Amino acid sequence: MSGPVTIVDSAERVSVSSDIRVQFPGMWNLDGSPWRYLDTAATAQKPQAVIDATVRAMGVDYATVHRGVYARSAEMTLGFEAARRRVAAFIGADEGEVVFTRGATEAINLVASTWGEANLKAGDRILISMLEHHSNIVPWQLLRERTGVAIDVCPLTQDGRIDLDAAEAMLTSAHKLVALAHVSNVLGSVLDVKRAADLAHGVGAKLLVDGCQAAPRIKLDVKALDCDFYVFSAHKLYGPTGIGALWARAEILDAMPPWHGGGAMIDTVTFEKTTFASAPQRFEAGTPMIIEAIGLAAAIDWLEAIGLDVAQSHERALANTLREVLGQRNDVTVFGPADALGITSFALDGVHPHDLGTILDEEGVAIRAGHHCAQPLMQHLGVSATARASFGLYNDESDIEALLKGIERTRRIFA
Amino acid sequence: MSGPVTIVDSAERVSVSSDIRVQFPGMWNLDGSPWRYLDTAATAQKPQAVIDATVRAMGVDYATVHRGVYARSAEMTLGFEAARRRVAAFIGADEGEVVFTRGATEAINLVASTWGEANLKAGDRILISMLEHHSNIVPWQLLRERTGVAIDVCPLTQDGRIDLDAAEAMLTSAHKLVALAHVSNVLGSVLDVKRAADLAHGVGAKLLVDGCQAAPRIKLDVKALDCDFYVFSAHKLYGPTGIGALWARAEILDAMPPWHGGGAMIDTVTFEKTTFASAPQRFEAGTPMIIEAIGLAAAIDWLEAIGLDVAQSHERALANTLREVLGQRNDVTVFGPADALGITSFALDGVHPHDLGTILDEEGVAIRAGHHCAQPLMQHLGVSATARASFGLYNDESDIEALLKGIERTRRIFA
Repeated sequence: MSGPVTIVDSAERVSVSSDIRVQFPGMWNLDGSPWRYLDTAATAQKPQAVIDATVRAMGVDYATVHRGVYARSAEMTLGFEAARRRVAAFIGADEGEVVFTRGATEAINLVASTWGEANLKAGDRILISMLEHHSNIVPWQLLRERTGVAIDVCPLTQDGRIDLDAAEAMLTSAHKLVALAHVSNVLGSVLDVKRAADLAHGVGAKLLVDGCQAAPRIKLDVKALDCDFYVFSAHKLYGPTGIGALWARAEILDAMPPWHGGGAMIDTVTFEKTTFASAPQRFEAGTPMIIEAIGLAAAIDWLEAIGLDVAQSHERALANTLREVLGQRNDVTVFGPADALGITSFALDGVHPHDLGTILDEEGVAIRAGHHCAQPLMQHLGVSATARASFGLYNDESDIEALLKGIERTRRIFA
Repeated sequence: MSGPVTIVDSAERVSVSSDIRVQFPGMWNLDGSPWRYLDTAATAQKPQAVIDATVRAMGVDYATVHRGVYARSAEMTLGFEAARRRVAAFIGADEGEVVFTRGATEAINLVASTWGEANLKAGDRILISMLEHHSNIVPWQLLRERTGVAIDVCPLTQDGRIDLDAAEAMLTSAHKLVALAHVSNVLGSVLDVKRAADLAHGVGAKLLVDGCQAAPRIKLDVKALDCDFYVFSAHKLYGPTGIGALWARAEILDAMPPWHGGGAMIDTVTFEKTTFASAPQRFEAGTPMIIEAIGLAAAIDWLEAIGLDVAQSHERALANTLREVLGQRNDVTVFGPADALGITSFALDGVHPHDLGTILDEEGVAIRAGHHCAQPLMQHLGVSATARASFGLYNDESDIEALLKGIERTRRIFA
């Protein structure tokens, strides 16, 4: 995953993105000019194909799933379960191993509350890293309060990768879980998941991977990566809000106790005793995210038609270009490694990232400025916030030019 | 709430529903004929206004909330929080008391896991009723396993209401929570919430109300109803899947510990200690259901423009009509009280509800056949399943005629 970067040639890159941008109603300003949206790591814009699938699912196709005796409900059930298979195929999993959740955050909380409470106790240890998103820190802290488990923090290399050599030295037989981001949402650094899995398994721990930033950019094969849990959100994958997925190995998922109680997750209910459905239904209480699942499947179809290899090289190339140009300035610090994937965090000397973000907004350029839900990493970097530009398939060099123009204007204002 | 029924005159009723049906793409078959959709208690079809709001939120308006420094994110944040205010106003609450959840099921699980675990212990008792949906049974059973709390079941009156006289006799100072459906999803019977609140508060218990079937049909004022928790799902309210709301009194919500950990629900995060945001944000970890919240607000706008009084009288009148016609047959048993609200459960002698549902489907009529996620109620009624017709604002007498024609055909097939 962190091997050599293949950069597609410039002509192909421009062709990819200009064909793509027109498919995104959200990528345009009201006056018809392109919006310079560089906050895809927060959430991706939605292609017309996903919007159209949503409109059909909310309209002519709409019905509940798993319950109706009428044809349209049976068809919607087929569509919903086909979406589950689509997600499974997308990550190299079996469909029975995919649980639909609200997003990656809920998926991690689900693992902490079910697998965690059933398997972890005081004296056990969890290893996370310095660059984790709050969603891969706070659920384990809440579990720590409930179980007395300890949390260790793996440091980073000088260039902002999770330091797996350090992890290797830290891991002991007391560690039951290693929970790491596949791609950092701040630095864009990519984890060697296979090595992390080998290290975790070497001490008998499970590996959970937060794939939010990886799923839109890396062709996944959870079996080959050899992890135990993998989570991601649809809204960062050109799909709807309100849905994401938890993948867990079948034998782990099957052994996990139920989480939420309600309809659809039961086998039989009496007041004395309730028995539960098998996974994944056991973890999907209540009417599921029907419309969202259809939208997620459409997003995966859309993305795979273009190709994850194209997405990866396109977004890595844009991040590289930005890094190189910013690196030529003596008033900019760029964070993260040279092969960062689609995400560039930086600081402009003497300008608070929020001020930069505000001035860029006036220029029609949207970046993120803040702690990026990674306050411990900010502390490690010695800053309260960074400016972050992140790329999607719809971006091209013209967006970088607009960003650089905005940085120039900011420089003049703060001169 | 269970007072005298005002039935609007037939001319107005027809006018209301024919104007309305055309607004629902889901209410038509591919050949342009009307679909006889009588499963609104499972999930409601979506008006074009809600679909249009969703398309805008996914397209030209799309951005994340609570985080971006750029204008479109600030605008989406305003829209998202306006949706919260819209929900609050819809139920007579303050906006700070409304938590967005995936739906009613998640909302009840949230209360069980946070308020329940913090406040209930072995020896305490919860009172539910014989007609509850699994979503208002199983979360309390899971809490029972974790805390040792006991669950009591309030019986029903002969005509299928929660027997509040029995509840009064059952309640003791050991009861800390009463959890009841406002409107039964099987029988359509309506709870006197104010009296239930008085009874609960009389012994020092809190009252949680499952409002899934009430929210689309009864003008709510949670303060006047004097309950402590109120939950409902958007998808039964002509809104999107994947979103619902938990309302709790501010002083209760403020004292509840966090639930899921992640972004947006924190104040500051360090590896040593994390502090949490105040409610409702404390209960909304991760990127929220942005698009769905906009859709829910549009659904409430749509419903309130017609009027909850119109919805209630229209749907009660349709249920009354169906009950009267079915009551004239000697081969049909109708369950539930005469003033059932929009929902009619029945049995056709000698025909399994699934067979009836399948034959009706061939006639273009969609009813629900099954246990309706209320297996204990089925056991009480002495059946394994019922047939259920449930009405929305888009239905009219022609749907009832189609249903009756289908029942006639079924009768002939099973003669």
